[in-house]
Amino acid sequence: MYRNFKFNIISSFEKARVGVLKTPHGDIQTPAFIFCGTKASVKGISPKQLIENETQVILSNTYHLLLYPGADHIRERGGLHSFIGWKGPILTDSGGFQIFSLGHGSVADEIKGRRSGISALLKIDEDGALFRSYRDGALQFLTPEKSIDTQRNIGANLIVAFDECTPYHSDKKYTENSMERSHRWEKRSLNEFIRKNDFSQALYGVIQGGVYEDLRKRSAEFISENPFFATAIGGTLGSTKTQMYEVVEMAMNGLDISRPIHLLGIGGISDIFRGVEIGIDTFDCVHPTRIARHGAALVKKNGTREHINLKNTMYAQDDNPIENDCNCSTCKGFSRAYLHYLLKANELLAFPAITIHNIKFMNKLMGEIREGIQNKTLDIVREKWC
Amino acid sequence: MYRNFKFNIISSFEKARVGVLKTPHGDIQTPAFIFCGTKASVKGISPKQLIENETQVILSNTYHLLLYPGADHIRERGGLHSFIGWKGPILTDSGGFQIFSLGHGSVADEIKGRRSGISALLKIDEDGALFRSYRDGALQFLTPEKSIDTQRNIGANLIVAFDECTPYHSDKKYTENSMERSHRWEKRSLNEFIRKNDFSQALYGVIQGGVYEDLRKRSAEFISENPFFATAIGGTLGSTKTQMYEVVEMAMNGLDISRPIHLLGIGGISDIFRGVEIGIDTFDCVHPTRIARHGAALVKKNGTREHINLKNTMYAQDDNPIENDCNCSTCKGFSRAYLHYLLKANELLAFPAITIHNIKFMNKLMGEIREGIQNKTLDIVREKWC
Repeated sequence: MYRNFKFNIISSFEKARVGVLKTPHGDIQTPAFIFCGTKASVKGISPKQLIENETQVILSNTYHLLLYPGADHIRERGGLHSFIGWKGPILTDSGGFQIFSLGHGSVADEIKGRRSGISALLKIDEDGALFRSYRDGALQFLTPEKSIDTQRNIGANLIVAFDECTPYHSDKKYTENSMERSHRWEKRSLNEFIRKNDFSQALYGVIQGGVYEDLRKRSAEFISENPFFATAIGGTLGSTKTQMYEVVEMAMNGLDISRPIHLLGIGGISDIFRGVEIGIDTFDCVHPTRIARHGAALVKKNGTREHINLKNTMYAQDDNPIENDCNCSTCKGFSRAYLHYLLKANELLAFPAITIHNIKFMNKLMGEIREGIQNKTLDIVREKWC
Repeated sequence: MYRNFKFNIISSFEKARVGVLKTPHGDIQTPAFIFCGTKASVKGISPKQLIENETQVILSNTYHLLLYPGADHIRERGGLHSFIGWKGPILTDSGGFQIFSLGHGSVADEIKGRRSGISALLKIDEDGALFRSYRDGALQFLTPEKSIDTQRNIGANLIVAFDECTPYHSDKKYTENSMERSHRWEKRSLNEFIRKNDFSQALYGVIQGGVYEDLRKRSAEFISENPFFATAIGGTLGSTKTQMYEVVEMAMNGLDISRPIHLLGIGGISDIFRGVEIGIDTFDCVHPTRIARHGAALVKKNGTREHINLKNTMYAQDDNPIENDCNCSTCKGFSRAYLHYLLKANELLAFPAITIHNIKFMNKLMGEIREGIQNKTLDIVREKWC
């Protein structure tokens, strides 16, 4: 069923593991970070620059591509790899995350327990979800079958079953009913996937169950019992860091750990170490690339911040690179003072320059984590990075 | 006086010539195009990308750098090369162009005979020009001595004497008086240059005289009689293409043609061929990089347009690169359809991607022009490009 895909665990240290996820578009050395190219582009960065900075795999959002330019348009251009000029592995999500998070406020806010907002989601029923396009207000109805068909047309290597991303402010009853419906949707996703399987794609199942241990366990068992290629941990992870780690650990119970395990939407440095330690193989988050566009550069060992804000006046005369031990083109070519100036002068170059550093930073972090697992020195690696 | 600079003409064909302009930061093969990094950055493009696309030399604007971040700040950062991470030759203008063109409307409009606008220029007298900062409204007074000192602190290799950029809508009397004052200012610029010459910079004189043949001739003779390293042709070149060529030819009369000759602010493909044919060595213009940010990609042989607008719906399904025979990373990696999509989706990557093509295009154009002069096949080169 997944004959062109394989996941080999080549080394492990306690629950952490180093693996190779083989796809028709190349191998991913895990643990790996997946960079967000939300609208078919990692903002401001070309595939050439992604490769120069050791990027292995990127993610695009089905929700955005469905609305524009449309999955058929991408298929007619030869699929997403050909359309965007990226030859490596690509993951697309199911579209559910954006529909439901936009349904409950701005993306990501609600599932992280922050605030509620204006609804773009009109109706959820057994069949699927009715929502309005953020582009033109047109009605859109997304079902498990439509999500899989859309992801087929887009043509990523790694695709995700359609689920409801349960918000944080849901009671247990709602969360349980939603999880059960998500399971039925994921089963339909799997059936649709199998019906048209051409061996170019592999399907992830998603664990739901909110912050409830018994639900997370049931969901993990459901995913493991069905022939998904890999597992993603989705839904709310609670409203605090402590709760996040608890919920992720709950979701790991009852899971088939021979499959790759992806943690959706997490990208902080210390969070990645925690995730790796409990057995997560891949992570994605807009964080490294998004904060770059606000002038924030990732740095090692900066207390709880994990970055410096180059807009700060203290960097106006700082002739050092972002990091002295970084060999990205930004750190080789530019000082903090120049990056500060570019940001203050509204010069476009600031955004790709800082983004490049943050991409290289994340890829170096993941490389050292892999070495740390293999050498059983993960604690020393963590001590260096956060 | 210019011991670290040299201009060798190595080949010529009628009035066109191929040369090498030697600077302490490397050689410029001429005819060459100088890309605008107005505010100490070619918008969205890193020095690494400039080099990858065969860029030889860039220009920054003294006016902008004087107002922010300030010439002292740049000097304290080790000078402009060090500050921006560009190791090749740099030219700075005198600051006059922006002061006077902003004084008569938006930059470049007035000297091209288009429209007048709100004045940022408050007063011109024998000593210099009083103007308001576009950033904070602060009063600034620029004199020939201050322009040279500012350019010293900035530290470009090629710097320009301070002059008044006479607008198009000036009568002959005003133009003549302005030219005479510019000559006095340029003489003061030269004296200030000589007084502090450390052999790291070379000074351009600027020919003024508006659209009047006798004035242009007098101005050319004045510049040639004084020990400037090179000559720039400035001021209004008239309001039509025909008049532009006439005015440039007027300015070439009486000129010391053993020196490098720069044509300020011209960057159209056919204009460059006309300029090269009458003996121009270097050109600068925001055009190739500015139009890229509006979605326009330079192409060969497209009638009078010289570019295609990738925002046009006709490119939505065009799977060809901008140009089939272009080997820039954009043409190697992206289709017109993808660039169209990026523009329509407001994706940041569109701007550097199209800019890279336009930079490579201009540098390839200049390379083939140099070959055409050496092989005496300039007509065939022109026939290929426009």
